[in-house]
Amino acid sequence: MTEPGLFLTLEGGDGAGKTTQSTLLEEWLTALGRTVVRTREPGGTEVGVLIRDIVLHHRGEVAPRAEALLYAADRAHHVETVVRPAIARGDIVVQDRYLDSSVAYQGAGRVLGRDEVRDLSLWATGGLLPDLTVLLDLDPSSARARLDADDKPFDRLESEQDDFHARVRAEFLALAAAEPQRFLVLDASRPAAEIASAIRERVAGLLGGGDVAGRD
Amino acid sequence: MTEPGLFLTLEGGDGAGKTTQSTLLEEWLTALGRTVVRTREPGGTEVGVLIRDIVLHHRGEVAPRAEALLYAADRAHHVETVVRPAIARGDIVVQDRYLDSSVAYQGAGRVLGRDEVRDLSLWATGGLLPDLTVLLDLDPSSARARLDADDKPFDRLESEQDDFHARVRAEFLALAAAEPQRFLVLDASRPAAEIASAIRERVAGLLGGGDVAGRD
Repeated sequence: MTEPGLFLTLEGGDGAGKTTQSTLLEEWLTALGRTVVRTREPGGTEVGVLIRDIVLHHRGEVAPRAEALLYAADRAHHVETVVRPAIARGDIVVQDRYLDSSVAYQGAGRVLGRDEVRDLSLWATGGLLPDLTVLLDLDPSSARARLDADDKPFDRLESEQDDFHARVRAEFLALAAAEPQRFLVLDASRPAAEIASAIRERVAGLLGGGDVAGRD
Repeated sequence: MTEPGLFLTLEGGDGAGKTTQSTLLEEWLTALGRTVVRTREPGGTEVGVLIRDIVLHHRGEVAPRAEALLYAADRAHHVETVVRPAIARGDIVVQDRYLDSSVAYQGAGRVLGRDEVRDLSLWATGGLLPDLTVLLDLDPSSARARLDADDKPFDRLESEQDDFHARVRAEFLALAAAEPQRFLVLDASRPAAEIASAIRERVAGLLGGGDVAGRD
């Protein structure tokens, strides 16, 4: 019998550890015998890479609504061609960023309202929401310290002002507070192994307690 | 005193004569001393050309909602960077295709509803509607005959089925019937000079009768 697919997303600022936790989660799920599809937005498809290139290579020239629509187009194509087929196959999608990032970054930090950005994403995806969204919460000064330690140049979003990061963080926390059933908020400054354990516990509940116990 | 700008769009199937009529209208307005901005959607900006390339070069691979969002992104950027600034300068924008094309082609011929496609365009443009939309109406068999006479290969939209053209035509006519104040519907099989005259008459009214009379 095919087990039901799951749609898991990881959110949080750059440097919060989304990639590390995605990898640990994938390893655990794979060991349980599940097929994992690791993916990301923006740019999770060939078409999406082209869309992302337009936004990133024309910084400051793309009108704000156009930028929001381009990200929504990337999302629409990605959900239709990658995420929904994977869920339908019974796979587990582990995705770096989804609509909450659009709402937090575009809605809070820019000129557009969060409700209209969210509505746009929901229209783009036919209303698809994740089964679980892990928010890796990191206060902005810790995030900056981590990125500085990496000694790599800041990219577009990373180079924005610190107060912008603070606003984005507040937006993410507000989104999590509004949907406590969907969100798991974790302090990203904790050790990676502890965070991974907390994520596994929550995902295990979604997989069905009996199944997981049986395979332990 | 700066005269107010105008936003004029031409709609209709390929082969209906939009380019010919745009040229004649531009010549007349220029002779009246007005500055005309000739433009088009999709692809009226550098960013728009990149967006259009994605849609056209990935035919059949781009999810329908993604395609609608890409066209809306093109429109948002074009309106913000070309159309609104031109109107604000007092210029007259003469544009080949606008949101009515999206509604007629996407809403009628494809899988998305016309209301949602229209809402998307209105969000993209901040609600900008043309002062006048000229619909060059041609029955599909005449359109096909014209295109065949040109002896050029059909492009993406031109190669769609004839019944698709018939549905698009019906959608355009329904849009015109719903907004008779904005639309001027003309039989595109009439001589070009007659059509041009009818367009000039309607545009003259928008320019203000007194002004136009004074310059005649």
